[in-house]
Amino acid sequence: MSAAISPLAPKSYAELPAIEGVSFATSAAGIKYQGRTDVLLVGLDKGTEAAGVFTKSKCPSAPVDWCRDALKSGKARGLVVNSGNANAFTGKAGKDTVKKTADIAAKALGCKPKEIVLASTGVIGEPLDAKKFDGPLQKAAKSLKATPWIDPARAIMTTDTYPKLSTAKATIDGVEVTINGIAKGAGMIAPDMATMLSFVFTDAPIGAAALKKLLSKGTETSFNAITVDSDTSTSDTLILFATGAAAKRGAPKIKEANDKRLKDFKAALNEVLLDLAYQVVRDGEGARHFVAVTVAGAKSAASAKKIALSVANSPLLKTAIAGEDANWGRVVAAVGKAGEPADRDKLSISFGGIRVAHKGMRDPSYDEKIVSDYMKGQDIDIRIELGIGKGEFTVWTCDLTKEYVEINGDYRS
Amino acid sequence: MSAAISPLAPKSYAELPAIEGVSFATSAAGIKYQGRTDVLLVGLDKGTEAAGVFTKSKCPSAPVDWCRDALKSGKARGLVVNSGNANAFTGKAGKDTVKKTADIAAKALGCKPKEIVLASTGVIGEPLDAKKFDGPLQKAAKSLKATPWIDPARAIMTTDTYPKLSTAKATIDGVEVTINGIAKGAGMIAPDMATMLSFVFTDAPIGAAALKKLLSKGTETSFNAITVDSDTSTSDTLILFATGAAAKRGAPKIKEANDKRLKDFKAALNEVLLDLAYQVVRDGEGARHFVAVTVAGAKSAASAKKIALSVANSPLLKTAIAGEDANWGRVVAAVGKAGEPADRDKLSISFGGIRVAHKGMRDPSYDEKIVSDYMKGQDIDIRIELGIGKGEFTVWTCDLTKEYVEINGDYRS
Repeated sequence: MSAAISPLAPKSYAELPAIEGVSFATSAAGIKYQGRTDVLLVGLDKGTEAAGVFTKSKCPSAPVDWCRDALKSGKARGLVVNSGNANAFTGKAGKDTVKKTADIAAKALGCKPKEIVLASTGVIGEPLDAKKFDGPLQKAAKSLKATPWIDPARAIMTTDTYPKLSTAKATIDGVEVTINGIAKGAGMIAPDMATMLSFVFTDAPIGAAALKKLLSKGTETSFNAITVDSDTSTSDTLILFATGAAAKRGAPKIKEANDKRLKDFKAALNEVLLDLAYQVVRDGEGARHFVAVTVAGAKSAASAKKIALSVANSPLLKTAIAGEDANWGRVVAAVGKAGEPADRDKLSISFGGIRVAHKGMRDPSYDEKIVSDYMKGQDIDIRIELGIGKGEFTVWTCDLTKEYVEINGDYRS
Repeated sequence: MSAAISPLAPKSYAELPAIEGVSFATSAAGIKYQGRTDVLLVGLDKGTEAAGVFTKSKCPSAPVDWCRDALKSGKARGLVVNSGNANAFTGKAGKDTVKKTADIAAKALGCKPKEIVLASTGVIGEPLDAKKFDGPLQKAAKSLKATPWIDPARAIMTTDTYPKLSTAKATIDGVEVTINGIAKGAGMIAPDMATMLSFVFTDAPIGAAALKKLLSKGTETSFNAITVDSDTSTSDTLILFATGAAAKRGAPKIKEANDKRLKDFKAALNEVLLDLAYQVVRDGEGARHFVAVTVAGAKSAASAKKIALSVANSPLLKTAIAGEDANWGRVVAAVGKAGEPADRDKLSISFGGIRVAHKGMRDPSYDEKIVSDYMKGQDIDIRIELGIGKGEFTVWTCDLTKEYVEINGDYRS
């Protein structure tokens, strides 16, 4: 496993304020990793509303099955996350582990097992023993704190090279509320819930049904618009918790996602989701370049997204970017294979605003030297103009390097 | 570019017999490569029937456009292939180059321009000057020979590390006919015409309409069942030429693909196509392992194919195989993301006949040591039993190595 921090990592980590109603503790349970924390317990005040979006995988992990069921109530009192073992494809034993873990956490936090949500990340197919949580969770429940948020962000990391945190403020009807988010990513990152795990907390008093809608919409242009390697995980989980503590300070209780008073909150939530999604891509395994692929002039936004993903997932383009080569011919090939409406002879392609191809052929005016210099930068913008409609979409990805192969050829052993 | 021959290369190259009505010559025109042949001219006797299948890319190369049009007649008298430049995304200039090249070849061979089919492979987006062919083609036309077939196979190579050839005999109504095929591959290899270029020749007297059907069907389980990197090329071309010369030896003229007398021919043709497809995968850029992924017990064969491709295209699984790690958890994830019917709790997975996962969890009886030893071999068989139907399909791929990244990060420069 690579220990060096990604060169694309943020220069500093956001400092997240406390959120009333949310407290946490981490523990080193030795599930797989040694010498680091790998279990997170979050306690949530009574009345916390919660909603989640999950992997679309047909082989979801045991915790994903559990969360889907538990969140039907729209309530949560606790969250348990472990890293190092995904508890996926572990059959009945995996199901039992989830149940036992929820029992332990519920007892420690003084709530019902079905008020506990769980997430696991790491190797697939290895049995996870619930005993690992017996002791660590009870101890954690006695030392819950409201800060520092970098602790939970660190405890959920697997091959991530840095913790991922984001925070934003918003006002609802004049009352300030806070949104804090953490995430982990690294590999097996693809649309349909692109992060493996992310948890977002707010003190805003918003009902679970509304949270669900806000989350689904916000995910579409953030976590579902990033890809590291096109591999969708069995464990992808994003849960939004709203303690409602801001109600005491006068924030109105909101039940409907289309309530106009949520305008500012929505923007802030989307900002946090996008910031976390960026951080996940910037920590893509072996990543050396952060790449934005924008497709404009497509038949529809949905069509633009499919084409952008075809480009962003092309191993040939991703290796070219690793080689700092503006190989726009591979962009053409990736547009062509997407199966979406496109007209070769109307296609234009730019790298960093420098148009390299126009109307179905190389732009005669472009200077290879300038583009080559641009490709040496860390952030690469690719813009594709299809010229056949008004649909536009941006996805974010990273390059495909030898380090990716190294990390993933050597992960399990 | 890597010069070393793939470790998965065949120990020796097939020796192909002459086919009456087919002759060829190669030339070193210096289109991109120096010190090797890069242009192939094939002359075909009058009466040769021909049919092709092409890339489904929305951004096809100029030669692909030309061939689609020219082959409407079902006839061909000549084939021109160049390596080093794909003449793709080259606008009107690219179209003009194709036209001029066909003119030169037609004049040299004494036929009409529309009786010439063309194919180009190499870099996308670079203008290709027809003058490069003026001289080499005339010279080639004067030195056409019927053997050795390794010459045309070599002239069409790009990053291929070895020439790809295959041959088979068949009888039609008691008369022996020959089928010879050549191919080039290496990168940008994905279903929807998975090889970049392949040309198959026979002396059997079969009409173009029947050839087209035989080709479409045979491609489905050969070239369309292989993938190196999921990147479909703009230039994928497979053409089957039938000179009909065997008619002189008593072979009947056949017009319909479902003619019972074609049974043996069909089997031999499919054998040649599959052999060439294997050779393409075995020369996948950076490949160190040849991988067969079989999905059985799926809802349908089409569903099995989609799941098999999802597995075969998973970068995480491909890097694990490069690392000789039987990481079947990544197989589970790839099955899960395929979006096809699957039941996690009925799923079984085997590597080389050793069952590692069964009914939704690790097979408790499996010995990691034995599987690890198996993964050190060159040929890896992965079998996935879904247990929900009777659909079955096999696709072939290779692993994803650091060499793939190296070759493709450095191709254009």
